[in-house]
Amino acid sequence: MKEFDLIAGRLRSLSGKPGLNLIDDVAVLSDQPEAGWVITSDTLVEGTHFRSSDPLESVGRKLVRVNVSDLFAKATKPQWAILNMTWPKDREDHDLNAFIDGLASDLERFGIKLIGGDTTTSQSDFVLSLTLFGRPLSDRGPVLRSGGSPHDDLWLSGPVGDGYLGLIDQQSYPHAAGHYLEPRLASVEQLELIARHATGSLDVSDGLVADAGHLAAASGMAIEIHSEACPLSVDGRRFVGRPAETDRLIRLITGGDDYCVLFTAPLESRALLESAMFRIGRTFEGTGVKVIGRDGEPLQILKGGYEHGSTG
Amino acid sequence: MKEFDLIAGRLRSLSGKPGLNLIDDVAVLSDQPEAGWVITSDTLVEGTHFRSSDPLESVGRKLVRVNVSDLFAKATKPQWAILNMTWPKDREDHDLNAFIDGLASDLERFGIKLIGGDTTTSQSDFVLSLTLFGRPLSDRGPVLRSGGSPHDDLWLSGPVGDGYLGLIDQQSYPHAAGHYLEPRLASVEQLELIARHATGSLDVSDGLVADAGHLAAASGMAIEIHSEACPLSVDGRRFVGRPAETDRLIRLITGGDDYCVLFTAPLESRALLESAMFRIGRTFEGTGVKVIGRDGEPLQILKGGYEHGSTG
Repeated sequence: MKEFDLIAGRLRSLSGKPGLNLIDDVAVLSDQPEAGWVITSDTLVEGTHFRSSDPLESVGRKLVRVNVSDLFAKATKPQWAILNMTWPKDREDHDLNAFIDGLASDLERFGIKLIGGDTTTSQSDFVLSLTLFGRPLSDRGPVLRSGGSPHDDLWLSGPVGDGYLGLIDQQSYPHAAGHYLEPRLASVEQLELIARHATGSLDVSDGLVADAGHLAAASGMAIEIHSEACPLSVDGRRFVGRPAETDRLIRLITGGDDYCVLFTAPLESRALLESAMFRIGRTFEGTGVKVIGRDGEPLQILKGGYEHGSTG
Repeated sequence: MKEFDLIAGRLRSLSGKPGLNLIDDVAVLSDQPEAGWVITSDTLVEGTHFRSSDPLESVGRKLVRVNVSDLFAKATKPQWAILNMTWPKDREDHDLNAFIDGLASDLERFGIKLIGGDTTTSQSDFVLSLTLFGRPLSDRGPVLRSGGSPHDDLWLSGPVGDGYLGLIDQQSYPHAAGHYLEPRLASVEQLELIARHATGSLDVSDGLVADAGHLAAASGMAIEIHSEACPLSVDGRRFVGRPAETDRLIRLITGGDDYCVLFTAPLESRALLESAMFRIGRTFEGTGVKVIGRDGEPLQILKGGYEHGSTG
């Protein structure tokens, strides 16, 4: 749907602050980023972002987590939420209860209070938007996509590929299936390290390679990823085999819905990050993303990842 | 859908500030209402809040205006917006362009900049959520539902009934049909008067009588409305006839989608408001809403209005 992307571009042109808003995953409600509320808003649509067969309790948690993930990547602690829920008219009431249970438990888990929203009904689609407001953990303000520099290390907070594996085969990959339903996010300890050390950062939702591309473009630098250094879960390691089958590894690093944090940090921070994060590459002068295989040669990757069409 | 209302009540219990948020049309992003951003978020669903045959340019404007209306009623000037758009996969691209044209023109008209959001696709439903952030015009902060007192005048900023007439018969009532498609809001002059004089306030979206009930309940007072004093448009006057047919008048004051401001103000403000607003009644000690007919007797009103299921 090419035209749709063009329209997303047109929406960007309506933005007041082209330097920051609508080109990052978050917006900042202030002219001084270090002083304002950091905002993110993600929509989940049945059949696109979750399966009709997924437990509604998990959908409630996923809605919270995909949004918390955006704030965590900016080293921002969520505080308030607005929920816009469109519920299919003919759906069972106990499903709605299950959804609210999941939503409520995760709002509590992350210390978020609901402050408003709108509940409506639709003919057929279950559509959910959550908008989160948070405060940066660091006095420097939120860590943005554009903050990376060409002489940094590249870090990941957790494994990639489980979102992809959990979607394609729930039976064979139960750990990954659990992550697809209810994404595992960065820990509080990791969040504090990101606040202290990260220069540029985003959460991996479109696939590691695609999101590395977004980070490289926003920060004006080139990225080199060492495929062998990319952390995989127990299911991911089983999927790629040993030694890792390159085609399968590429599927994991280009699949989406990972919801871990990809960030850059100065080389001086290496010793402090090494025990809690995964160092997967480097940044350089230049543009674009190169993924290096086991033999030291760049891998041929045709498809960087998939996009849900997010503009903000 | 009774259960749905119960769930909306459960969502309210997740709120952090029961005194204000989720029981007004707006939330305030601060512990001090006079210092914070005032936020409102309304969802429009095709088939529920607009017709599939409505011009998409008008849908774009309506999305902006139903949200601006909520802020205007709080004497708050909108500044920033977040858009969550779920677009049906098989819909024509030129429709999407028309929607964006309408949206963009009204964002510009009201001086609002888009700062973020999410664009997704659905199987069938067109679902739109807009979240607006504004600043109160008065140092007193936003005018809330709960601010009315039992010895105030009751005022309306514009005619009621056009939302209802425009929905039931576009051909016979073209003025009302225009309002149904693209609601006419309070003027800037009226907005400044509301900021200066209003004690309690909300916008009329569920119908005048139902919303008067919300205002009375939140402010802890009784409301008396004089039906003959309620302003009607040229189409509204034609619909009720002369002398006004009571049943028809009741349909106009209980229909929804009026998007004018209903507010209370002290008797001392009367002289300053009279030229720009419509005085339609009084507030008293007590509870509930009474509508007085031409003969001075209370009208029997079975249905107060309709609800879209808004929780915030």
